[in-house]
Amino acid sequence: MSELIEKARKLQAAAKKLSILSSEEKNAALLKIAEQIANEKDWILHENRKDIEAGKSNGLSEALLDRLLLTETRIEQIIDGIRQVVSLQDPIGEIMDEWERPNGLHIQTIRVPLGVIGMVYEARPNVTVDSATLCLKAGNAVLLRGSTSALHSNKALVQVMQSALEGTSIPAEVIQLLEDTSRETATQMFKLNQYLDVLIPRGGAGLIQSVVQNATVPVLETGVGNCHVFIDETAERDMAINIAVNAKLQRPSVCNAAETILIHEKWPYIKELLDTLHDKGVELRGDDSLSAQFSYIKNATEEDWYTEYLAPIAAVKLVKHVSDAIDHIDRYGTKHSEAIISENEQNVQLFFQAVDAAVLYHNASTRFTDGEQFGYGAEIGISTQKLHARGPMGLKAITTVKSIVRGTGQVRN
Amino acid sequence: MSELIEKARKLQAAAKKLSILSSEEKNAALLKIAEQIANEKDWILHENRKDIEAGKSNGLSEALLDRLLLTETRIEQIIDGIRQVVSLQDPIGEIMDEWERPNGLHIQTIRVPLGVIGMVYEARPNVTVDSATLCLKAGNAVLLRGSTSALHSNKALVQVMQSALEGTSIPAEVIQLLEDTSRETATQMFKLNQYLDVLIPRGGAGLIQSVVQNATVPVLETGVGNCHVFIDETAERDMAINIAVNAKLQRPSVCNAAETILIHEKWPYIKELLDTLHDKGVELRGDDSLSAQFSYIKNATEEDWYTEYLAPIAAVKLVKHVSDAIDHIDRYGTKHSEAIISENEQNVQLFFQAVDAAVLYHNASTRFTDGEQFGYGAEIGISTQKLHARGPMGLKAITTVKSIVRGTGQVRN
Repeated sequence: MSELIEKARKLQAAAKKLSILSSEEKNAALLKIAEQIANEKDWILHENRKDIEAGKSNGLSEALLDRLLLTETRIEQIIDGIRQVVSLQDPIGEIMDEWERPNGLHIQTIRVPLGVIGMVYEARPNVTVDSATLCLKAGNAVLLRGSTSALHSNKALVQVMQSALEGTSIPAEVIQLLEDTSRETATQMFKLNQYLDVLIPRGGAGLIQSVVQNATVPVLETGVGNCHVFIDETAERDMAINIAVNAKLQRPSVCNAAETILIHEKWPYIKELLDTLHDKGVELRGDDSLSAQFSYIKNATEEDWYTEYLAPIAAVKLVKHVSDAIDHIDRYGTKHSEAIISENEQNVQLFFQAVDAAVLYHNASTRFTDGEQFGYGAEIGISTQKLHARGPMGLKAITTVKSIVRGTGQVRN
Repeated sequence: MSELIEKARKLQAAAKKLSILSSEEKNAALLKIAEQIANEKDWILHENRKDIEAGKSNGLSEALLDRLLLTETRIEQIIDGIRQVVSLQDPIGEIMDEWERPNGLHIQTIRVPLGVIGMVYEARPNVTVDSATLCLKAGNAVLLRGSTSALHSNKALVQVMQSALEGTSIPAEVIQLLEDTSRETATQMFKLNQYLDVLIPRGGAGLIQSVVQNATVPVLETGVGNCHVFIDETAERDMAINIAVNAKLQRPSVCNAAETILIHEKWPYIKELLDTLHDKGVELRGDDSLSAQFSYIKNATEEDWYTEYLAPIAAVKLVKHVSDAIDHIDRYGTKHSEAIISENEQNVQLFFQAVDAAVLYHNASTRFTDGEQFGYGAEIGISTQKLHARGPMGLKAITTVKSIVRGTGQVRN
C-alpha cells in the first residue's frame, strides 16, 4: 500500500475517535503539543537548518529562504498560536437550528467536524502547526502536504506533535505528513474522495490553481485578491488618503492589500493623494489623463488593471461616476475585498448592492478582510469562492452539519 | 463563439440585473411564466410528442419514455410547482449576522445569490421548469443542460419561459438551454469557472459521477443513498414494523428509501417483521443465520450490503449490539439517512453521535429526508456532500453571503 493510502486510512479511522471528544480533551491535547514544541525547540531548529542548507545549495531566493526559516522567535510565535487556538470557542456540538414539523417530528441541525482535511501548502513550516491545531480544535484529522523544500522541518514538527498526543485523548494518527512530495502523489491525493472530505490549498496562485484544476475532492479555494479602493467625489480628504495608503502599503504582499485606486474625477484632492503615495515610495501606473498630468506616473497597460502586484505598485484611474467604478471592479476584480470612500449614502448603497465580492467596505481599509480582524480569533484562510464559506474563514468553516430528527413512530404518507 | 460561451456570457450579464430585483418583481415574473406555460400547453405537448416518437424509434425503455412524457396533468403539476415557488420566502437580502468590532467597524453578513448555476440533468422535462424557477426565485441565472432525448420538450419549455419574461423586470436571458448536448461541450461546461458559480447534477449515479469527476466548477453533489433502519432490542413492535415497511416500500425508487434493515438479535418480533416484509412483496437477502431460518430469505452477498436497490428488495442482518449496527453503517453506508428504532435513550445517543450521515432519525422513517418534509417548501435536491449544504437543500442552498463592513475611516495597524 502506498504511503498516501496508508496514512489516509489511518486518518479516517482516527477522525471518528476525534470527532466525539470534548473541548476539554481537545484543549488538553493542544496544550501538550505547545509544551512539546517548546521542549524540542533545539531539535526542530536543527532539522530546519538542514532545509535551509539544502535551500541555499539549490539556489532558493532570499525571500523563499526567509519563509523557510525557523528561529527561536518564530517558534515562540507558533506556540503562542496554539495557545490562541486553545482559547477559541469549540464550534462542535453547537445547535444551529431547531424546529418542529406539523407531524410532530423534531428536527435539530448540529455542527459536526468535516472529517479528514487535506492541507496543501508551500514553504512556511509554521503552516504545518497552525493548520494541524486548527483542524484538531474543530475535530478534524489532517493530512499535511507541504513542499519538498521544508520536508525536514515538517517531519520534525509532525513527529513532535504526534509524540505530544501520546497519552492524551486524541489519537496520534490524527496528524499525518505526506512525505512523498511528488507531483503524481499530489494529484492522487487531490482525487482521494474516498478518504478526504475537503482540500484547503494555502499558497500562491499557482499552487491554488493546481489544486482547483486537478481535484475531485471539494476544495476550499483561497487566494487571489485584486482589490480596489474607490474614492468618491464626496470623500473626506484625510480619511481617503489614510485608507488608500493603508490599503496599499501597510502590507503590500497580502491578498487584501489594494492594487488599484479608482478616483472620482471631481474629487478635489487628487494631487494630494497621488503625491502622498509617490512620496511613500509607491510606483504609480495611471490612465492617460493621469500619466499626462503627473511626471511620476507611468502609463498603465490593460494588464495592469488585472494585476495583483503584491508589491508597492498601484494602478490609478479617474472615473466619472460610482457606476464607472463598479463596472471597472466588475471587469477586473477578483471578488475579494472592495472599498468605497464616500459621504454620499446613495452611492454607498449602490456600491454595496452592485459589487459582487466577499467583503465590501465603506470608509475603511480593505486590509480588514482577515479572520482575526473579523473577530473569528484565528484564520484558516480567506475564501474567494462562493460555496460553503466566503471571505475570512474561522473554525466554523472547517465544520459541517448533521440533522437529528426525533419522532414517535412517524412514517411518510 | 460557441453556443456555450455565448450563452454563458449572456447569463453572467443577466445575473447581475436579476440579483438586485425585489421579491415582488421576481414573483410577478414567475407568475407570468406559469400563465404562459398554461397558454402554450398544446404546443408544449406537441413538441414533447416529437421526443416521445424519437424515443420509441431509438428503443428507449418504457420507464425512460414515462419519465420523458408530458401530459396535461403533468403540465398542471409543473404550474402548481411554480405557484409554490412564488409562495416561498425570498432568501435574498436576509441579514444573517451582524456585529461590531472593538475598533468600531460594523459588520453585516447578507444573503445574496450565487450568480450563474449550471443544472445538469436527465430525461424529465419538468426539471427544466422546476430548476429554472427555483434559481430565479433565489436571484440566480441558470444554464440548463438536459438530455438529448428531451431536447424538443426542453427547447419548447425554455422558449415559453423566455417569452413570458419579456415585459417583466427579469431579463429573458437569465434562462438559457444548452442545445448542444454533446459530451465534449458538457465537459467544457463543467470547467467553465469563469462564468459558472456552481454545478448541480440531478439524476442517476452515472450522471453525478461524470460531473464530479470532470468538473473544476464547484459541485453541489446529490445522489446515492444506501440507507439503513436499525431496530434495537427495545424497539416497539408496531412502530418498528411500520417504519421498516414505510422506509423500504413507500417509494422504493428514491434515495431516502431504506436498503438494509439491521435487527438486534434479541428483538422479540424478528419473525413478524420479516413475514410482513415478505408478504408485502419485498425480496429479502439475509445473513447466514436468517437465510437458514427463513425459507424465503436468500443469502446476501458482500455486494448486497453496498447496494442501493431502488426496488422492493431489502438486505437484512442480525446484530448483537448497537455498536455492530454503527460499524455496519460506517462500512457500507453512503452518509445519507440512517434510522434507529429504540426505546433505549443511551443507544440512541450513541447512534446519533457515532453515525456520520446527513440526517439521523430516532423512531421515524428515513423517507422524511426531503426539502418539503423538512419544511423548506421546495427542494433543489438532497446534498450528500459535506461542504456548503448537507441533507435536503431548499432555496438557501443556492445562495451565498456577502460581508458589508461600515467604518468611519478605520485603517489597520
